[in-house]
Amino acid sequence: MADSVGMRDLAELKERLRVFVAERDWDQFHSPKNLSMALAVEAAELAEIFQWLTEEQSALPDADRRRRAADELADVLVYLVRIADRLDVDLLQAVGEKLEQNAIKYPAERVRGQARKYDEY
Amino acid sequence: MADSVGMRDLAELKERLRVFVAERDWDQFHSPKNLSMALAVEAAELAEIFQWLTEEQSALPDADRRRRAADELADVLVYLVRIADRLDVDLLQAVGEKLEQNAIKYPAERVRGQARKYDEY
Amino acid sequence: MADSVGMRDLAELKERLRVFVAERDWDQFHSPKNLSMALAVEAAELAEIFQWLTEEQSALPDADRRRRAADELADVLVYLVRIADRLDVDLLQAVGEKLEQNAIKYPAERVRGQARKYDEY
Amino acid sequence: MADSVGMRDLAELKERLRVFVAERDWDQFHSPKNLSMALAVEAAELAEIFQWLTEEQSALPDADRRRRAADELADVLVYLVRIADRLDVDLLQAVGEKLEQNAIKYPAERVRGQARKYDEY
Repeated sequence: MADSVGMRDLAELKERLRVFVAERDWDQFHSPKNLSMALAVEAAELAEIFQWLTEEQSALPDADRRRRAADELADVLVYLVRIADRLDVDLLQAVGEKLEQNAIKYPAERVRGQARKYDEY
Repeated sequence: MADSVGMRDLAELKERLRVFVAERDWDQFHSPKNLSMALAVEAAELAEIFQWLTEEQSALPDADRRRRAADELADVLVYLVRIADRLDVDLLQAVGEKLEQNAIKYPAERVRGQARKYDEY
Repeated sequence: MADSVGMRDLAELKERLRVFVAERDWDQFHSPKNLSMALAVEAAELAEIFQWLTEEQSALPDADRRRRAADELADVLVYLVRIADRLDVDLLQAVGEKLEQNAIKYPAERVRGQARKYDEY
Repeated sequence: MADSVGMRDLAELKERLRVFVAERDWDQFHSPKNLSMALAVEAAELAEIFQWLTEEQSALPDADRRRRAADELADVLVYLVRIADRLDVDLLQAVGEKLEQNAIKYPAERVRGQARKYDEY
């Protein structure tokens, strides 16, 4: 059990999801369109956990809420990796490039302590 | 440049995001509540790319659409890793456990070729 | 019963929601921020009903699915009217102005049969 | 101009949207599936306006933010009315029934000042 739960990295997750989907013949449902919709639904289910809490309360969730959040985070990751796979996007490379862009868009000395969107600067 | 873009794994991403946020004093905005809202917004921006396409078209995006999708996937991953960090959730462990549950909820021989939610079975 | 269910228009809905919220002392939770999050969650629950269907299937829902969709549409309308109330926005006026803008952005002779966003033209 | 902007009620909005869509031959894109996705996207764009604000700040938006919110509220209403039309759902009736259910699910004396979901009671 421990072995099957253990997940080393995103590459292994991608492979295991491929097998899971193939065994169920679910590739027919996994268009980027459908997967992106499913991802948005899971993201909303995560947000639902925190929506009526104050920000402070959301930072100190009880065990049940934290467990439910972990569950939704996992769902989001599943669909994220599936979409990236279907679009042949390397997630780690994409996020590396995004961080480079963000470092330029949001220079630390200029945006410190402010949350406005970059195009409002 | 290549070096700074290179991202080995989720653990490195978590660390780099911590630095990025600390340099900008943005931790004050990064409550799980706000981050889950931001994640949902990015997920919707991803879905927007595909919403008027047929499923078939979404599976064969042109270069521009694919690049925009990669950009949104990166945004989703950023917020996903941030929330997990704030909630002290190990994403790979959470997703490993979720796959175990899904294997039980959706036995291959029973759900093959069907997309109904498990509670409809 | 029939009388209390009968709802004449958005103005009456706004008033009834004000009473409902006041009776429960829920105004403290109904910031535009929270309400917009709740609206997004309800919208996702609506999308979830259709996400694995083909477009054709979604246009011919069975009675149960149609009933669940009606339920989510009602939830969306509730939060929509609440946010508009909190921001003192007249929904019918706002949508009238939006239709004017859309008529200019999307001239019928130019966009006929195409779903690209206006800024792609 | 004022005349064309004036919108009396949801019934008129439904009719005007039918004409708008027919003139552009957009019915082919307006499956409940696609429309629910578009609704979720607009709801997220509304949430984006408030996501980094405190709840207090969101209740006192400046003129520009309020105008942008009104714009997104209008977009949400457009898709809401379109989906209801495609599914032949009477929005005011659906919301009237929903309010009846909510009055039972959330008895005022029991839930006063608490925002937990009804199934947590």
